[in-house]
Amino acid sequence: MAIISLITDFGTQDEYVGLMKAVILGIDPAAVFVDISHSIDPQDAAQAAFMLESSYRYFPAGSVHVVVVDPGVGTDRAILYLESDRQRFLAPDNGVLSFVLAPDRDPRCRRLDAAAFARTGVSPTFHGRDLIAPAAGRLSKGLNPGQLGPEIDARSAIRLDGLKAVRAADGSLRGRVVHMDRFGNLVTNIDAAAWQRSATRAGRSPWVEINGRRITCTGRTYADAAAGQPLALIGSRGYLEIAVNAGSAQSLTNARKGDIVRVWEQADGDGF
Amino acid sequence: MAIISLITDFGTQDEYVGLMKAVILGIDPAAVFVDISHSIDPQDAAQAAFMLESSYRYFPAGSVHVVVVDPGVGTDRAILYLESDRQRFLAPDNGVLSFVLAPDRDPRCRRLDAAAFARTGVSPTFHGRDLIAPAAGRLSKGLNPGQLGPEIDARSAIRLDGLKAVRAADGSLRGRVVHMDRFGNLVTNIDAAAWQRSATRAGRSPWVEINGRRITCTGRTYADAAAGQPLALIGSRGYLEIAVNAGSAQSLTNARKGDIVRVWEQADGDGF
Amino acid sequence: MAIISLITDFGTQDEYVGLMKAVILGIDPAAVFVDISHSIDPQDAAQAAFMLESSYRYFPAGSVHVVVVDPGVGTDRAILYLESDRQRFLAPDNGVLSFVLAPDRDPRCRRLDAAAFARTGVSPTFHGRDLIAPAAGRLSKGLNPGQLGPEIDARSAIRLDGLKAVRAADGSLRGRVVHMDRFGNLVTNIDAAAWQRSATRAGRSPWVEINGRRITCTGRTYADAAAGQPLALIGSRGYLEIAVNAGSAQSLTNARKGDIVRVWEQADGDGF
Repeated sequence: MAIISLITDFGTQDEYVGLMKAVILGIDPAAVFVDISHSIDPQDAAQAAFMLESSYRYFPAGSVHVVVVDPGVGTDRAILYLESDRQRFLAPDNGVLSFVLAPDRDPRCRRLDAAAFARTGVSPTFHGRDLIAPAAGRLSKGLNPGQLGPEIDARSAIRLDGLKAVRAADGSLRGRVVHMDRFGNLVTNIDAAAWQRSATRAGRSPWVEINGRRITCTGRTYADAAAGQPLALIGSRGYLEIAVNAGSAQSLTNARKGDIVRVWEQADGDGF
Repeated sequence: MAIISLITDFGTQDEYVGLMKAVILGIDPAAVFVDISHSIDPQDAAQAAFMLESSYRYFPAGSVHVVVVDPGVGTDRAILYLESDRQRFLAPDNGVLSFVLAPDRDPRCRRLDAAAFARTGVSPTFHGRDLIAPAAGRLSKGLNPGQLGPEIDARSAIRLDGLKAVRAADGSLRGRVVHMDRFGNLVTNIDAAAWQRSATRAGRSPWVEINGRRITCTGRTYADAAAGQPLALIGSRGYLEIAVNAGSAQSLTNARKGDIVRVWEQADGDGF
Repeated sequence: MAIISLITDFGTQDEYVGLMKAVILGIDPAAVFVDISHSIDPQDAAQAAFMLESSYRYFPAGSVHVVVVDPGVGTDRAILYLESDRQRFLAPDNGVLSFVLAPDRDPRCRRLDAAAFARTGVSPTFHGRDLIAPAAGRLSKGLNPGQLGPEIDARSAIRLDGLKAVRAADGSLRGRVVHMDRFGNLVTNIDAAAWQRSATRAGRSPWVEINGRRITCTGRTYADAAAGQPLALIGSRGYLEIAVNAGSAQSLTNARKGDIVRVWEQADGDGF
């Protein structure tokens, strides 16, 4: 029996998620599912990659993480099986696995032999149900991963560009909003280490700019800002977030996914 | 232990779905749930019937499919137990079982003996929790279905009219949009066989009309249209869908559930 | 193994709920989850308290009910473990447990020893994942609750004011809308007993006032009003609801959560 996590852009109004589970349970009735999110924006592989990066470490080793964000469904794009950081992953080869393909996580990769794993009568528009779910079910049942398909060089798998924040020519750390949560918190791709380096270098807290607004309050928890006031903090994902205590940073800043976020190191003479 | 699928119009913001599961687990702690959809439009029995038809075959034989779309809750409408096509169903007698009552699926039907299965203190507004969930729990626990209530003639169960596409007097195949999924794909009630007959008769691909728009591109998968362009294809449910590659057919056509979809066979002289 | 119910304000688009389950399964792979609602309005402890009150009794005795609506996350507010009415509860000490703290339910309370239960590297913004989930997982695995932390006097736990409907000076029973469900039913905090007392005293059905509208039709089930017409009835939660048969009371009355609802006892001379 395996724990199987699910990240998709299917939403929950349709039967798509349920049918993947049905197919898996038909193979291994003891499989245990954890829905991470089915609200990835349609076909947004980058958002799915971040969601996976924020999630997989909290699962027991050996869990199977199934990611189905698949604009190329029905084409000849590959479906990958990946072992990385003591976890297992199944996903189309379109960049959703970018983070877990990092060389320091010891990724080992196979290309799913679709002919061997397909249900009879594969729909060209729903490989999640007809190819990926059968593979997940057999893994849950104890299949030796070597039987999934031929090993390939993990370096040949597709990685998305531009996922990480960069140091810009003007000296700022330049990232973007990669996710907005239900509370209106703005999650960025600026990780705790990069933020900490800016803080150390400046000798005091950096400040954050988004959509022309300066956010100078930093903290550990939402309550470190006054009610209704914005602050920057390292969120539960280990990335910089912009939040409003008892409010919504999304409403305050009119932010959208993809908006640029800059971190500036405060010089001593900064006059604000 | 049974696998129990759930289709309701309850949404997920309220406690209704959770309480049905709680009652079932109180009877059989080993029951396994699969949520198919809780987003059926309130009291839309036809939409639920299509959702069930798109789903049940993917479950292991013997699964219990619970459908609670129940505008007549608290009245004397019956609750049915149905065995059909090697699956089991529990639902109010209002047409949600229309497809699985088809004679060629060998339906056998019982009327739930409500007095025998009710929880103490049945709420007249939530039979899902107080009548149907207890029956599902006992089935999961291994109850002989004969104890659910008296057998009735399956032909006496309510069927909805107008579910299937028809051949219109003008020669077109006339169906309608029965569902719009999260991607904006328009799912019709024109099944693959009817579509294929039109294609065979015409000797080339038929074209599709919706809301005054002609869709002449057909394909197997979304990528068979250019990005942003519409196409008609047989979707994963086995029914004709109208889709837009990397876009939303719902947005393009302003379609709504119930809109008429026509399939026209192209004559050789068709000038477009 | 325990059945673990979940009430949060996390929504389901983010990974928050999934990560709590992942952490629990890492401790007890046999834990069984029931999602009650993740749609509590952000940080609305009163709404969560009502949702819990409407739900917990339907679970098997000994279930663990986890409520994470936690505006004070990261501050020194306590996390409580409560045994009450043969059920178990884990929640921040902010009033979400108000109903189950009622003296007649025999509440016994402990304060979670956070240091003992925390995951390594607790995020100050996600105690649900890093403190409450580990405690729930250990309870599911069979931990003696005495090891969770020191017993405290249940009377010292925070209770919310104004949860219950009151008899107003003008003789009306004065409550409010505490929840609006997917069907547009308006759930009030006027319980069946209070409603029944008004009915008994008046000798005939009371009438209900909301937003200047009088609702004089009462019934047992939605079908007791004509289609499209409003009525007042005791809903499946045991509280007065305002509903519209085959329609939405929310649309009809433009009600919002918090709106005042009055119950008036009809005098014999009432002229309508």
